[in-house]
Amino acid sequence: MPLSRVRKEIDDALAAFVDRQRPGLLAIGAELTGLLDALDALLAGGKRLRPAFCYWGWRAAGGDGAQPGLLDAAASLELLQASALIHDDVMDSSDTRRGQPSAHRRFEALAARGGWSGAAAFGEGAAIVLGDLCLAWSGEMFETSGLADDRLARGRRVYDLMRTEVMCGQYLDLMVGARGRASVAEALRVVEFKSAKYTIERPLHLGAALAGGEDDVRDALTGYGMPVGIAFQLRDDVLGVFGDPAETGKPAGDDLREGKRTVLVALTLERATPAQAATVGRLLGDPALDVSGVDALRTIITETGGLAACEALIDRYAGEAAAVLVDAPIAADAQAALSELAVAAIARNA
Amino acid sequence: MPLSRVRKEIDDALAAFVDRQRPGLLAIGAELTGLLDALDALLAGGKRLRPAFCYWGWRAAGGDGAQPGLLDAAASLELLQASALIHDDVMDSSDTRRGQPSAHRRFEALAARGGWSGAAAFGEGAAIVLGDLCLAWSGEMFETSGLADDRLARGRRVYDLMRTEVMCGQYLDLMVGARGRASVAEALRVVEFKSAKYTIERPLHLGAALAGGEDDVRDALTGYGMPVGIAFQLRDDVLGVFGDPAETGKPAGDDLREGKRTVLVALTLERATPAQAATVGRLLGDPALDVSGVDALRTIITETGGLAACEALIDRYAGEAAAVLVDAPIAADAQAALSELAVAAIARNA
Repeated sequence: MPLSRVRKEIDDALAAFVDRQRPGLLAIGAELTGLLDALDALLAGGKRLRPAFCYWGWRAAGGDGAQPGLLDAAASLELLQASALIHDDVMDSSDTRRGQPSAHRRFEALAARGGWSGAAAFGEGAAIVLGDLCLAWSGEMFETSGLADDRLARGRRVYDLMRTEVMCGQYLDLMVGARGRASVAEALRVVEFKSAKYTIERPLHLGAALAGGEDDVRDALTGYGMPVGIAFQLRDDVLGVFGDPAETGKPAGDDLREGKRTVLVALTLERATPAQAATVGRLLGDPALDVSGVDALRTIITETGGLAACEALIDRYAGEAAAVLVDAPIAADAQAALSELAVAAIARNA
Repeated sequence: MPLSRVRKEIDDALAAFVDRQRPGLLAIGAELTGLLDALDALLAGGKRLRPAFCYWGWRAAGGDGAQPGLLDAAASLELLQASALIHDDVMDSSDTRRGQPSAHRRFEALAARGGWSGAAAFGEGAAIVLGDLCLAWSGEMFETSGLADDRLARGRRVYDLMRTEVMCGQYLDLMVGARGRASVAEALRVVEFKSAKYTIERPLHLGAALAGGEDDVRDALTGYGMPVGIAFQLRDDVLGVFGDPAETGKPAGDDLREGKRTVLVALTLERATPAQAATVGRLLGDPALDVSGVDALRTIITETGGLAACEALIDRYAGEAAAVLVDAPIAADAQAALSELAVAAIARNA
């Protein structure tokens, strides 16, 4: 199945799941259309990376590409991701997501239109609830995919581990952000748990576990997935500073305004003069950072060699993954698809 | 099994589950002890009502009281409840829970002790993450309870419905709070989904479904559970205004400061003079409400007859439940336990 076809089937599975929930919600109260609208808006975007990796983990382990229910189980990862995005945006007070208002801003606007008091508090609260609902629904969608019990039992162990890992990674990320400093090693540990395992390695393992894959497949998927996952996040770090808002769906320099303690920032600070480090300390995380402030930080990140070091790391990890893939004990079509997915995940215009 | 023994086994199952997770978290990072400490503190309190109702729903439907895994599946509801409490406290900006600092305040203090910037933001973010983790773990604990697949498949349908209902109820509650007004009927709808179904009816249904109970048992559990659940919440509303902080674990009048649009408040406003209604409008939801403000609201709630109307509703619902229980097609010991649990749930010193 070509990538575009997998993507289409994942979209269809997601839409069908939400449509099955819709009448139940509206029976509880017509006002719940507000929750559904916010979810629909979020799910209209997104690259469906995690379900795609799950599908190709399944195929890599010899699973039948036409297995009923597999893409429902895979698509459930997109609801888990929706939950993570909605809650992340609350934690970071982000205004935009995928080029649209973030969920809490959308709910805030709903309250403001209604003339209700405490619109901001309502926005945050409703977004927390919607994220909870997406988290609950991701589990429900996985469990009700229709896959056989033995498959689900194997997959559940990966799913459980993955959820715990991503939440622990998020907690560590919050700590690093609050402390306002992170070494390259500390920033990489957050990337490992919050991004690389969650976005790529575990979705691959999930698919392989559902298919009943052996340890050698699993190990190869780790050997490929971890470096791709780290490179994916490093690319995201670079785009968060230098990316085109039309492509990232976020305002220019948003990561700088949020003060994210990324690997890119850690690499920059390792190379910065005391004066450059002081400027970073002053500007990074300033919510009112303007274009000239963003430019000043971009200049330091470039001139210190932080950017070049980050790009070199991306290239190194991408090369590592490609080398593993060549020798991996997996079907040729899965190999080709994973190669293509790696390129898409790490691309400069991602 | 006496109620105290059920309670003890639920506590043990919860502690064993968290202990199984502990090494995995600490392997990711020693700092994750902060998450575990906050969870331990929360789980040290609580009446374990939902697991108890699940157990007695199982027994009511003829389930074996010594079934291995049943109390693990039941205890998972306490993790779901932990998630709901942690997130509710973030949404309501509540400082205390079960007589201890709420999770977000605990995390905020951790950040302040470390001298980190943005302690309040860290506190909220970390509490959102911990609530997410508890939600994920509740599903994991249920699914890995060891009960047979056919039992879990039946139970899962109730579990899924229950989670969706309580989250929708929470959304409606936030709307009612932001609008700053709710009729008795609107407040009762929130109570129905956020409290009565979630705390009592669905846990009973869950136990009965796991046991393979028939429709007549299920219907009787609804007939008993819904009125007990509504009465439970109305009692909680009364305690939120008039309760002894030593028993509620919350400061006196905390619900008034948070501006909760409870059935008790709606019953009061139905009966209030324009002057009384204006005073309620001015004081209810004032975060700085002092003792004299709390007293003024208590006086209005009492003098309008709002309190008496609420107590009358509690008595009516309690009587309704008791009448259903007498004729319910369930085992005598389950009948006795449910009668005792209803009294405990509705007691004035709950």
